[in-house]
Amino acid sequence: MPDTYYIVPQEKHDNLVKKAYLTRGYNADEAAAGARFCSAAAWYGIRTHNAIKALHLDEIFGSKVGRWKPGVKIEKLPSRFAASEIWNGHFKLGQAVAYEAMDTCMKLADKYGVGMVSVDNATHYLWGGGYVMDVALKGYFAYTNCTSATSEVVPFGGRTATLGTNPHSWGFPTQEAIGFPIVIDWATSTVAMGRVQQFKREGKMLPPGCAVDAEGNPTTDPNKAVALLPFGQHKGYGLGLIDELYAAFTGGGLPQIRGTALGDPKEKRASTFFFQVMHPDAIKGNDFALGRTQMQNVKAIIADILGHGNEKCLLPGQPEANWGALSKKYGGLLFTAAEIGELNHLAKECGETPWNVADFKAVTV
Amino acid sequence: MPDTYYIVPQEKHDNLVKKAYLTRGYNADEAAAGARFCSAAAWYGIRTHNAIKALHLDEIFGSKVGRWKPGVKIEKLPSRFAASEIWNGHFKLGQAVAYEAMDTCMKLADKYGVGMVSVDNATHYLWGGGYVMDVALKGYFAYTNCTSATSEVVPFGGRTATLGTNPHSWGFPTQEAIGFPIVIDWATSTVAMGRVQQFKREGKMLPPGCAVDAEGNPTTDPNKAVALLPFGQHKGYGLGLIDELYAAFTGGGLPQIRGTALGDPKEKRASTFFFQVMHPDAIKGNDFALGRTQMQNVKAIIADILGHGNEKCLLPGQPEANWGALSKKYGGLLFTAAEIGELNHLAKECGETPWNVADFKAVTV
Repeated sequence: MPDTYYIVPQEKHDNLVKKAYLTRGYNADEAAAGARFCSAAAWYGIRTHNAIKALHLDEIFGSKVGRWKPGVKIEKLPSRFAASEIWNGHFKLGQAVAYEAMDTCMKLADKYGVGMVSVDNATHYLWGGGYVMDVALKGYFAYTNCTSATSEVVPFGGRTATLGTNPHSWGFPTQEAIGFPIVIDWATSTVAMGRVQQFKREGKMLPPGCAVDAEGNPTTDPNKAVALLPFGQHKGYGLGLIDELYAAFTGGGLPQIRGTALGDPKEKRASTFFFQVMHPDAIKGNDFALGRTQMQNVKAIIADILGHGNEKCLLPGQPEANWGALSKKYGGLLFTAAEIGELNHLAKECGETPWNVADFKAVTV
Repeated sequence: MPDTYYIVPQEKHDNLVKKAYLTRGYNADEAAAGARFCSAAAWYGIRTHNAIKALHLDEIFGSKVGRWKPGVKIEKLPSRFAASEIWNGHFKLGQAVAYEAMDTCMKLADKYGVGMVSVDNATHYLWGGGYVMDVALKGYFAYTNCTSATSEVVPFGGRTATLGTNPHSWGFPTQEAIGFPIVIDWATSTVAMGRVQQFKREGKMLPPGCAVDAEGNPTTDPNKAVALLPFGQHKGYGLGLIDELYAAFTGGGLPQIRGTALGDPKEKRASTFFFQVMHPDAIKGNDFALGRTQMQNVKAIIADILGHGNEKCLLPGQPEANWGALSKKYGGLLFTAAEIGELNHLAKECGETPWNVADFKAVTV
C-alpha cells in the first residue's frame, strides 16, 4: 500500500539534528557527524536508523544516562603496526568515531592496500551499512563489525541470549559498473527483537527459525519468545561469534551483561567497533578476460549473475539506491507524518518551533 | 552408529599422497604441500576433503585434464601497496599456493598488523578451514574466501545457478583460552550438491531451503532439484556474492561458465583466492576488565557465551579439535575400509603395493 511522505529539505533536517545533539552537550564536530549520519540514513530509506532512533538511543543508552560522553577525545594508542590503529573511544558518539575511523582506514589503504582501526569503549554506530556505503562511494572496499548494545541472541543449540545481534557490513565500489555500491549489511539474528514485538502486537505467529522460548526450544509464538535465534543455524551463529571474538581480543566485556547494570560492577559493558578498508587496486590482477578493465570485469560478472533468468533478483544495496533516487528526485528527505511527529519531540527538546506537515510538499510512494 | 576405522601412520599416508602428486607430474614442493594438506584434513576428520577428494579433483579439473599446471611458478605482480600482494597463480596446485599465501600474509601482518594476498588464475584449495586453522594455531587471525570451481547456487529469488558455493573461512587463535582454535568454515549454500545426490540415492526428501527446481521454485524433492539455494535467504546470498565480487575485482571470469567449456573460449573460467591475516596485537586495546590479559579476556568471553544454560552448545572448530584429539590418541590417521579401498586406487596409479586393512590396527569410534 502506498504511503504519504512529506519532503523535508535536507538542510532543515540536518540543522534540527545538529541542534538536538548540541542541546545534549555534544560538541560541533559530534553534532555534525550525528546529523550527517541521520541525513544519509533518511536519504537511503533506512527508517529504522534515522534521527529518531539515533537520538532515542542517546536517551536510553547514551548521554542522557551518562554512558556516552559528549566532547570526549578519542585516544589513539601507540601501535607497532603500520597499517593498523587501535583507539580507545572513551564513549564518544559512535557516528563521529565511525566516520573518523573510516577516514583513517582509507588513508592507510592508500598506502598499504589495506588499513584497519579497532575501537574499544565504543558506543553505538547505528547503521553499519551507512559507513561502508560512504567508503564504497569513494572507491574502496569497506567492512565493519561491532558488538551490539545488548545481548538478545542464543548461540546455536542454546537457551540463553549471550550474543548480540552483532551485525556485519560490507561495501563494494560497484557504482561505476551498476550505478550504485553493493552494500551487504545485516544483523546475525534471523529477525530483530523489534520484529518479534511487532508480531506480538499484531497477534501474528513468527516464521520458524526466529526465536526460542525460556527453555531454549524454538517457538513461533511471539508471546513465548524470550531470545532470538541466529540466522542460518550454525552458520549465522558463527558470524555472530566473530563480532564477539573481535571484541574479546580488543577489550570488550562479557556479552551476557553488555549494556546492563548486572554482574560485577568492574566488568566492562560497552561495545567495540572494527573497521577495515581495502584499495581495489591492491587486489587487481591485471589479467581480465577479453581485455576488460577491472570495472568492466565487475560489470560483466554482475550482469552474468543477474542474467540467465535471474533478472528479477535484487542486489544488496539496490533498495537503498532506489530510495536514494527518490530522495534525489524529490529534492529532500521523505518522512511520514508520524515520523515528523517524532522529530517534533526533538524540536521541542531543543526549543525549536515544531514543524507543520502542511508546510512540506506531500508525495505518495 | 559407531564406525570401524583403521589407524594409518601419518608418514605412510603422506608418502603415498606425495607419490601420487609426483606421478601426476607435480614437483617435490607441490607434492609436499599436497600431502601436508591431505594429512591435516584426515587428522581433523574432514573426510569430504581428504586425499581421496584432492586427487579426484586433480583428475576431473586438474592436471589430468590439462587445467592445473604442475611445476608452474607463481608470478608475484608488482604492487605499490606495502601490506598487499597480488599473485598470478598460473594454475599452480591450490594447496601449495594457499600455504605460501598464508605464510606471506603472516609476514605482512607481523609488520603492518594486517596483510593480504589475492590470487588470480587459481585452482582449488579444497578445505579453507585447514589454512585458517593452521594460521590460527600460529597465533594469528586468518580469513580466506574463494570462488568455487563451478556454479551451483542461484541468487536469492533466482532460477539459474550463477554463483559458486563460494565458501568463507575464519580462524581465531583461541587455543590458549579454550584448547583449540575457533574455525568458522562453510559454503554459502544451505547444503552441498553432494548432499542432494545422497538424498536422491536414499529416496529421501530434502529439508526446506536447500534447492530449487528448473523453474526456480523451491523444492524438497531431490529428483527435481537442479540448483542450490543460498543459506539464510538474502543473507547467505550476500555472502556468496562477496566471493564473486572479490573475484571480479581480482580477475575472475563469468561465474555461470566457471569450470566449464561453455561460452566464448576467450572468457576465463578459473577460480580466484583471497587470503588475509591479522596480528592479534594490532587490535588489542589494553583496557581489559579486572586486569585480565587479552587471552584471559577471550577465555572469559567464550565462557560467558557458553554459560548460563548454553553449556551444550558447540563452538565452531570443536568437532575438528575432537577428531584431532582422536588422531592423537591413536597415533595416526583414521580411515574406513572403504576409504582405504579408494586410497588403493592411488597406490595402484603410482605403482605402490596396495594397503591391506588387516595390517592396520582397527578402532571403533
